Amino acid sequence: MARIRTGKDGSRKDVIVKAAAALFHEKGYKAASMRDLAESVGVEAASLYNHIRSKTELLHDICFNVANLFWEHISKVETSDAKPIEKLETLLRFHIRQMIENFQEVYISDREWRYLADPYLSNFQNQRRNYRKRFAVIIEQGIADGEINKIDASTAVLIVLHAVSGIESWHRSKHKISGEELEENMITILIDGLKK
Amino acid sequence: MARIRTGKDGSRKDVIVKAAAALFHEKGYKAASMRDLAESVGVEAASLYNHIRSKTELLHDICFNVANLFWEHISKVETSDAKPIEKLETLLRFHIRQMIENFQEVYISDREWRYLADPYLSNFQNQRRNYRKRFAVIIEQGIADGEINKIDASTAVLIVLHAVSGIESWHRSKHKISGEELEENMITILIDGLKK
Repeated sequence: MARIRTGKDGSRKDVIVKAAAALFHEKGYKAASMRDLAESVGVEAASLYNHIRSKTELLHDICFNVANLFWEHISKVETSDAKPIEKLETLLRFHIRQMIENFQEVYISDREWRYLADPYLSNFQNQRRNYRKRFAVIIEQGIADGEINKIDASTAVLIVLHAVSGIESWHRSKHKISGEELEENMITILIDGLKK
Repeated sequence: MARIRTGKDGSRKDVIVKAAAALFHEKGYKAASMRDLAESVGVEAASLYNHIRSKTELLHDICFNVANLFWEHISKVETSDAKPIEKLETLLRFHIRQMIENFQEVYISDREWRYLADPYLSNFQNQRRNYRKRFAVIIEQGIADGEINKIDASTAVLIVLHAVSGIESWHRSKHKISGEELEENMITILIDGLKK
């Protein structure tokens, strides 16, 4: 039976989680089966179960890996000495780069989390809600400092995060600009739009 | 048997199409049945067929009603004497208001069009692609005039239209600002972000 090939840095489980993200993105979490996953990894379905217990566990890992990544990032940003508008730029660049380089995982975490089961589902929703609140607080600080246009902060979070999720179409488009150019274009529009 | 109640201006068919949009939004096009629709309109399923032939016909009507609305609007905007940046503001305000006031129809037309059958599917996709191109042309005119930041125009279209689609979350949120405030916030962020 074939063994699961791993890269230099990844464990076998990492390889499976990465393949699961690609598969869930292609077929949707609901429609994807463990048999599909085994095929994409190139092993028998039975040998997957040496590394993971269930499809739900894979979804859980993908969602929380992504959520924790953003959580750690915003924690660093919050404690930095930068001005609010610079903090926002750092946050946005991180979102954009994650959507470009870690697309399938971020997509699953953004779209398929509703298939998580409790208590994970509520934990995930809380973490997501809190992240957005912390993002809004930085915007509010910028408004208070007179650096950012007077807008409703939660609405601004909603607008910019949805704009970033548009990178999904960029992935699908045939004649596309480079990732760097995309990042600069988005920062130009969104950060200049927030600036007073 | 109950008759289909109509408003002052609407035909019976309009009432059915409107109810279909609400139902497709709630359940998804695939999962929604003609029986569900009959129930929501308050008539027997059989009597729906006096007005429409199939579920696909309803999807077709919703998608093309919305597409034609945007098509007519951009045609008027293109021939106006306004500057490109003003044209963009007019287009964006129209998108925003449609997402607020005509939400269910716009949502279906944006998300469920993939269930259309050919030749309607290809027609719809062409119309959508052409609309975005015409939108991009206006941005390019603004860049050429030095009014708009130098960015990739198709990417800018992608970014602003995705930002506007974020109004979906606004509809779901509990503590929400008014539609007018939402519109002004979005215009502030997006138009100021495009302006040079």
